[in-house]
Amino acid sequence: MPGARLFLTGFSGAGKSAVGRRAAALLGWEFADTDEAIVKADGRPIPRIFAEEDEAGFRRRERDALRGILDRERVVVSTGGGLPLDAENRRLMEGAGLVVALDARPETIAARLAGAQGGARAESMARPMLRPEQGESALERIAALKRERQWAYALAAWTIQTDALSIEQAAHEAARAWRRLGAAALHGGDSHVAAIVVGGEAAYPIVVGWDILEAQTGQRFVEAGLRGRAFLVCDQNVLHPYGRLVQRSLTAAGVEAHLFTFPPGEASKSLTMAGRVYEWLAEMRAERRDATVAVGGGVAGDLAGFAAATYLRGMPVVHAPTTLTAMVDSSIGGKTAVDLDAGKNLVGAFHQPVLVLADVSALTTLPPRELREGWAEALKHGVALDAGLVEVYESQADALLALEPELTTEVVARNAAVKARVVTQDERETGGARTLLNYGHTIGHALEAASGYGRYLHGEAVAIGMTGAARIGAAHGVTPGEAVERQQALLERFGLPSAYDVVDSAAILDAMTRDKKVSAGAVSWVLLDGVGSASIHRNVDAETVREVVEGLRAG
Amino acid sequence: MPGARLFLTGFSGAGKSAVGRRAAALLGWEFADTDEAIVKADGRPIPRIFAEEDEAGFRRRERDALRGILDRERVVVSTGGGLPLDAENRRLMEGAGLVVALDARPETIAARLAGAQGGARAESMARPMLRPEQGESALERIAALKRERQWAYALAAWTIQTDALSIEQAAHEAARAWRRLGAAALHGGDSHVAAIVVGGEAAYPIVVGWDILEAQTGQRFVEAGLRGRAFLVCDQNVLHPYGRLVQRSLTAAGVEAHLFTFPPGEASKSLTMAGRVYEWLAEMRAERRDATVAVGGGVAGDLAGFAAATYLRGMPVVHAPTTLTAMVDSSIGGKTAVDLDAGKNLVGAFHQPVLVLADVSALTTLPPRELREGWAEALKHGVALDAGLVEVYESQADALLALEPELTTEVVARNAAVKARVVTQDERETGGARTLLNYGHTIGHALEAASGYGRYLHGEAVAIGMTGAARIGAAHGVTPGEAVERQQALLERFGLPSAYDVVDSAAILDAMTRDKKVSAGAVSWVLLDGVGSASIHRNVDAETVREVVEGLRAG
Repeated sequence: MPGARLFLTGFSGAGKSAVGRRAAALLGWEFADTDEAIVKADGRPIPRIFAEEDEAGFRRRERDALRGILDRERVVVSTGGGLPLDAENRRLMEGAGLVVALDARPETIAARLAGAQGGARAESMARPMLRPEQGESALERIAALKRERQWAYALAAWTIQTDALSIEQAAHEAARAWRRLGAAALHGGDSHVAAIVVGGEAAYPIVVGWDILEAQTGQRFVEAGLRGRAFLVCDQNVLHPYGRLVQRSLTAAGVEAHLFTFPPGEASKSLTMAGRVYEWLAEMRAERRDATVAVGGGVAGDLAGFAAATYLRGMPVVHAPTTLTAMVDSSIGGKTAVDLDAGKNLVGAFHQPVLVLADVSALTTLPPRELREGWAEALKHGVALDAGLVEVYESQADALLALEPELTTEVVARNAAVKARVVTQDERETGGARTLLNYGHTIGHALEAASGYGRYLHGEAVAIGMTGAARIGAAHGVTPGEAVERQQALLERFGLPSAYDVVDSAAILDAMTRDKKVSAGAVSWVLLDGVGSASIHRNVDAETVREVVEGLRAG
Repeated sequence: MPGARLFLTGFSGAGKSAVGRRAAALLGWEFADTDEAIVKADGRPIPRIFAEEDEAGFRRRERDALRGILDRERVVVSTGGGLPLDAENRRLMEGAGLVVALDARPETIAARLAGAQGGARAESMARPMLRPEQGESALERIAALKRERQWAYALAAWTIQTDALSIEQAAHEAARAWRRLGAAALHGGDSHVAAIVVGGEAAYPIVVGWDILEAQTGQRFVEAGLRGRAFLVCDQNVLHPYGRLVQRSLTAAGVEAHLFTFPPGEASKSLTMAGRVYEWLAEMRAERRDATVAVGGGVAGDLAGFAAATYLRGMPVVHAPTTLTAMVDSSIGGKTAVDLDAGKNLVGAFHQPVLVLADVSALTTLPPRELREGWAEALKHGVALDAGLVEVYESQADALLALEPELTTEVVARNAAVKARVVTQDERETGGARTLLNYGHTIGHALEAASGYGRYLHGEAVAIGMTGAARIGAAHGVTPGEAVERQQALLERFGLPSAYDVVDSAAILDAMTRDKKVSAGAVSWVLLDGVGSASIHRNVDAETVREVVEGLRAG
């Protein structure tokens, strides 16, 4: 099984030692160097080993040195220039961690080696191969030897071209490669990890289980590499028992944990409440190495997440969602926000958590209406992205509504995986993939805005919006009748509304044009092509939209 | 001269066409494919060209196709798998844009090519080289041919290993490579560009000149790739003439430009004022493609920058600094923040601008005290990081204090370059480099906090802090007496204070422990090793600090 090890391969002069040392510091790891290990074990400097034995002798010692280093974890390993040519060495490294190649053009390497001559760096010991043969310039020798070896460097999992980078920048690239590609592999054997989100800068696990909050929060907080204090943010209803459970778990793991509570409800997702969180963090003298922990539903996640994104220009956040919506949707993907009077979620940041820990057993204490609204996003994931999930909903509705532990945990985990996959594809909603998650949200958001937040819960508004989107799709010949009907049946089965009252349709239509996904004034509609499949449409007829929105009014 | 062109090289099946198309969409560019261009020009499909001519004939057509594409700008070019083997082709690409290699392991390529068989994609036309010879498996043939060619792919400026990435993710990596490494090259011949900041996600130019605000803002806004509206944020004192000049320049370039003004002074750097900016942006229905433009000093930059970082979870920001501090320091590097009662800059975000445009002539209308305070950060750059700059300050003080246009512009540009270099090395202040910019700020920040913001301007507090840091350094045997004296002489020559009054030293010492750079409770001190050279010290004696802070009191 792979471990927390980062191997740097590449030609002499690519910067493996200097970059490796700095990358180790950035990750908080140790540093090791196979050439140094050889010299330490053998006692002779490398040029003497080469002179007194043959290359094969050196390669044997090199492999022993590599094997010796594999006993260690949390280590960045700089490897000799010829080490990855050997298939067994590559197998050892690939089995033990992430292999990243540092590369540079022959001209860059020649200049660096010329500059380093006489230096006492370990790497300079390993250069007997680089002595030019007769009639050959140093650059020619480098280019020729590098050309021979390039195929082996190309077998790394990631490559960093260092020509235009400083050591610091190259080290950041190496740490980034680990955080994105390496860290994910560590969770392979963990049955509680439902999915890994791979973002541009880092990857993080979504842990889903039944009754895991007290047993696992503290330990996973520490395993996620967090070394500071925990600042819990939860609403007054969630404090008992979940806020306290999380606090207890953290304390038991040796993590100092403090609690901030706020009044339940969307009204707390405000700049004013964010200001109170800031004042609390300032009073507690929170530092960048500490983390906020959101315990609760979407409001707690958004509030704690936004505060974490902006306090001291960014500190880590952990999400411990306790509502269904938060577990399958809002805790995953790094969207954080607060509301303005002018609209929901208008102010916020993309700030990926370092860990999401969803304890599905928390659903058993959720008020019925809040549990119901949570199914809206879960049904949406199925209807728009995963036909298999729809079949589970259709065949197992009773067990799911009864919160049968094993099945519900499995369905929440599968939903988390759907969301994680989409977010991994399109972290910042710049492409198409993440936009598909907005299925049902164009009308949904507008209905919430027009009715004054609170009249409809978010999931209720989304359910009505899904009904509207299906009808618009049908009117445009995009959505087949079967999909409209199956969606309708599911919404009913899970107790979700498909019509609004009280509000005026004109107000909904007006609010729709204010939605922040509006791009250059045109509304992009996500419509169903069939069950489990959605796509984006930009030429939806305004008159059809008006008719559908009017028709959604109960009456 | 290189242009806005991104060339994707790599073996068949590395994903050049699919990734190239998507990267072009992300950049808002066109897409071209050398294989498609060959077929279009020749009329025959590629396998027939290969069958009816020889490889050399194909390579000639390939080079002609590449040459033809070089007429276009803002284009992502997918190139044939063998194209970069040719030195002339490589020379053409390197001279015309950025070359990025897409790579994948032979196993990945074999699986992708097997999956794509029968597909009509352009790339599949170019595979006659891949027919296995007798007794060879497809994988062996791929591995062997790739091994032969790897040296040429390795000559790219950047490499993206696509094995573990989706097309979307690989396209984001390609766009990132362009934004970081390619975009910078475009500014090579522009004499107004004082420096380029290369961040983790993008690079941006710092334009410095005399009397350039009206002449250049609009045009450079468009050249920076901004296609939306401009939302200007400036204080009521800066509105005339600079806010209006910028607005006029933008309007002349066809950019719709709106203005928000706020009361001058640090008190406007608040969550409350940020809230007003948000409400204004909401009222104007600002979108993610629009940009905020900060015109003014540090407060405007921080306020507009923080609003841009958080409105709609992030929109672009342009800085047009009009104070010396903002030109040489605060507009560069992406730090944005607002203050809390508990401390300055406690809430904020790292949000790099897309463009910084410093019109040095604006300094002529600055009140004398604000101009004076600006020299503090400029002197700090010299004293801590650039001994040559100190010599300029010492020999040209009169001309600089008189704001002699050519010299002042040159010195501002050189300061911007110092700051840009440090920020490029350490974008998020995780390493040592950026910390060095805090020279003089530990005492400086504490003095500002303890005296109630406003009693001392930031630069005045920093000047006093620099005096304190020099004395602490001298007491620890780190800072030579010559450095202490030269710094002291410069501070005096530029009219900056080196002692405080009114405040109590105990209050300063207390405020120091609240500084957000505090890491695990220990204060890191930046001390001078000599003129132009500083380093970080963690074991500074508390008693010495107390004595120095007390000794800094005037009287």
